[in-house]
Amino acid sequence: MKTTVIGLGLIGGSIAKDLRRSGFATELVGVDANADHAKKALEIGLVDSIEPLEKAVCDTDLVILAIPVNHELEVLPRVLDLIGSGTTVSDMGSTKKVIVDSVAKHKRRRNFVPAHPMSGTENSGPTAALEGLFEGKIAILCDQENSGPQHVALIEKMFQALGMDIAYMTSDEQDHSTAFVSHLPHAAAYALANAVQDKEDRKIIFDLASGGFRSTVRLAKSSATMWHPIFQQNREYVVESLNVYIKHLIEFRDSMKSADDEKMLKLIRNANNIRGILEGQNPHFVKNEERITKLYTK
Amino acid sequence: MKTTVIGLGLIGGSIAKDLRRSGFATELVGVDANADHAKKALEIGLVDSIEPLEKAVCDTDLVILAIPVNHELEVLPRVLDLIGSGTTVSDMGSTKKVIVDSVAKHKRRRNFVPAHPMSGTENSGPTAALEGLFEGKIAILCDQENSGPQHVALIEKMFQALGMDIAYMTSDEQDHSTAFVSHLPHAAAYALANAVQDKEDRKIIFDLASGGFRSTVRLAKSSATMWHPIFQQNREYVVESLNVYIKHLIEFRDSMKSADDEKMLKLIRNANNIRGILEGQNPHFVKNEERITKLYTK
Repeated sequence: MKTTVIGLGLIGGSIAKDLRRSGFATELVGVDANADHAKKALEIGLVDSIEPLEKAVCDTDLVILAIPVNHELEVLPRVLDLIGSGTTVSDMGSTKKVIVDSVAKHKRRRNFVPAHPMSGTENSGPTAALEGLFEGKIAILCDQENSGPQHVALIEKMFQALGMDIAYMTSDEQDHSTAFVSHLPHAAAYALANAVQDKEDRKIIFDLASGGFRSTVRLAKSSATMWHPIFQQNREYVVESLNVYIKHLIEFRDSMKSADDEKMLKLIRNANNIRGILEGQNPHFVKNEERITKLYTK
Repeated sequence: MKTTVIGLGLIGGSIAKDLRRSGFATELVGVDANADHAKKALEIGLVDSIEPLEKAVCDTDLVILAIPVNHELEVLPRVLDLIGSGTTVSDMGSTKKVIVDSVAKHKRRRNFVPAHPMSGTENSGPTAALEGLFEGKIAILCDQENSGPQHVALIEKMFQALGMDIAYMTSDEQDHSTAFVSHLPHAAAYALANAVQDKEDRKIIFDLASGGFRSTVRLAKSSATMWHPIFQQNREYVVESLNVYIKHLIEFRDSMKSADDEKMLKLIRNANNIRGILEGQNPHFVKNEERITKLYTK
């Protein structure tokens, strides 16, 4: 299948790698507004060719948008303008409502399958692309009743080729849940990085940075280019999640400040429950029975 | 060298493993108030024998305390009461000032070397013990002028056998720095775990839990038995660090709420600086040139 990937960074590059590896994509065309990234992506073999957007999308089976969500608002309608009636389009953005609304009345709306594969690292650019980045992770498909069933089927098959399980919800639900589970942890890490840089003797702090600190603050390395537009587009829900978080931090601080040991213990033990919850079952998914390893054998 | 380890959990067990592996300890005696832990530690070979505290410390070269910091306040003076004049004692607690103060006037104070090896995981108990847990990490030695030089030298050699670099500071400096770099990230993770459990549809949240969320919230699994006393003993500095953090979170939320894009971008970019800082040089240490691998060859 001829597949066009727009945006050859961490997400687009990793998708290209695994779609080729699984045999899902037989020809990979790349598009990137950054000429250096485009060149690098070709050089390291993420894609077979680089083409201008117009050429790359008018004669292809599948178009994947993997660009910052603010650019999606401009590029997605252009792509839908240009594609043929049989082409499937999907986007990999972390926000969905604003993006879906931007093409709600487009005549090719049913060719578009809004999606959000929940995986990533704190690195960016084509050289950050990783094989197996999506394996065992969750892909969210939104508002599937507004997409043509053949297009939904193709995107489901693509995520299965990446080794992912699929969750279905409305774009509003996805934005609300993702605010808590992804956008809030990023905002918390940014604020933690800033707080620690405030301490007078910064050098000592960073010399001491232990594994716990490093893992907690890891997300604070994530690029502003990608994350600033996410916060803009999901403002309401992220502010809500930050309010809940700040409330819990104040509660924790106050239990400490007032030496209310019983309260503090209760808060720690409630937090500890996260272990069982994270290691529990995921009853909401269509489990991907056909892992990428099976696809190899075809 | 005969070494007695009091507390055979994650830290004590991991130390026992590597002191044996490096040849630093030739005989390992274990003490644990929890009979199941003691039995398990013997069974999996962390130590050669289990003895009651009194017997285990009266005729040994080195005593390592690796127990929750509240128990240290009771056990450390008892150990110093019981040891011979040549025995070295060190503790591995995450707080130092309260512990050091508790034995300030003890006649064996100079046998005691207060220390804090900065490493760990979110797991606990003897089966959580890991080989190489301390390799390449930092050990803090506090108030070294108050310990006998031969005792400091032995503890330095022990941390080198664990593959650690050593940083020297006062117990007050260690408590202040550790509040920001270790205790604050734990408090932040506990509050994040509680915040996310507040969301109405908890199931969806946890189904979606991605790598970023998991790494940010990992520390929230850490045991209350260990962490509650740390927060109690370092209350003032942890509250200070939480105040700084909450201030930064509010600043971040407000930039989002008021759609002040310039401000939000500035905050994200400042947080991004953590990458360069964490990957930079550590000029403050006595670097451990004699890694554990070299010790094997002796």
